[in-house]
Parts: sequence; structure tokens; C-alpha cells
Amino acid sequence: MIDKIEIIGLAAAVLTTTSFVPQVYKAWNQKATKDISLTMYLSFFMGVVLWFIYGIQIESLSIILANSVTGLLVFIVIILKLKYK
Amino acid sequence: MIDKIEIIGLAAAVLTTTSFVPQVYKAWNQKATKDISLTMYLSFFMGVVLWFIYGIQIESLSIILANSVTGLLVFIVIILKLKYK
Repeated sequence: MIDKIEIIGLAAAVLTTTSFVPQVYKAWNQKATKDISLTMYLSFFMGVVLWFIYGIQIESLSIILANSVTGLLVFIVIILKLKYK
Repeated sequence: MIDKIEIIGLAAAVLTTTSFVPQVYKAWNQKATKDISLTMYLSFFMGVVLWFIYGIQIESLSIILANSVTGLLVFIVIILKLKYK
């Protein structure tokens, strides 16, 4: 049975991870990324990679799940940012 | 002595937290937030609050530190987004 603490972690993971979906959708649809900071997304991506490693080290399902999906979405925003400048 | 795993966590925390600074700076300077998704930042903010609670529960300094500062920066982006639409 998953304990209460990991449920908070999973809920946090779902929220912070899925939060990038509307940004990907907006950038994809409007083909406009001028106001988005590339520096933010590049450093955020590097941080997410480290969080992923951290999650594996402390064996936290929430952190591992969150950061693999977030990493993918953030990577897409970076691609869209480079494409639409 | 802080162990190696928490150093990875702290490095991840620094990167993902400070990554919002260039976005706050860009939005503040250019007074333009059209391409930024409000939905993303609202759900990200809720997630950060949950990560903060999670960090307290598992007593992880990295997660507590990261999410209190990130929460503040994300809150500022939300204010700038509402101000400059």
C-alpha cells in the first residue's frame, strides 16, 4: 500500500509535471515563444536531470516519475523556443 | 558533513530554482508575458506547494529549500502575467 507521504509526492509530481503541457500546447499552437526565457528552460532542464538522479538515489517514485516526464516536456519547449525564437 | 546524495539534490534545487530568475527578469524588463501560459504557472505553483510539504515529510533539505524559493519566483511570474497579460 502506497503511504500518505508518497501520495503527496505523486500529487506534487502530477501537478508540476502536467503544468508544462499547457505551455507546450500554447507554444505549439500559437507558434510564438518570444516571451519565454530560453535560459530558464535550459537551466531548468539540467536541474530536472539532476532531480532524476536524486530520485533514483533516494528511491522516491514521485521524484523519478515527475522528472522523467517533466524533462521530456521541457525539452519540447526548448525545441519550440529554438524553432519559433 | 552533507552527503553526496544531498549535494546532487541541492545542485538540482539550485538549477531548477534559479532557472525562474531569467524568466522573471525577461517578463519584468520587457513587460511582455503573452507567450507564457498562466495555466502552467498556476498548476506549477500548486505543485510546488505540495513538493514543499513532501520535502518536510521526508526531511529533505534540497526539496524544502528549492520549493520555497521556486514558489516565490513562480508567484512573481503569475503577478507579472496578470499585470501584462
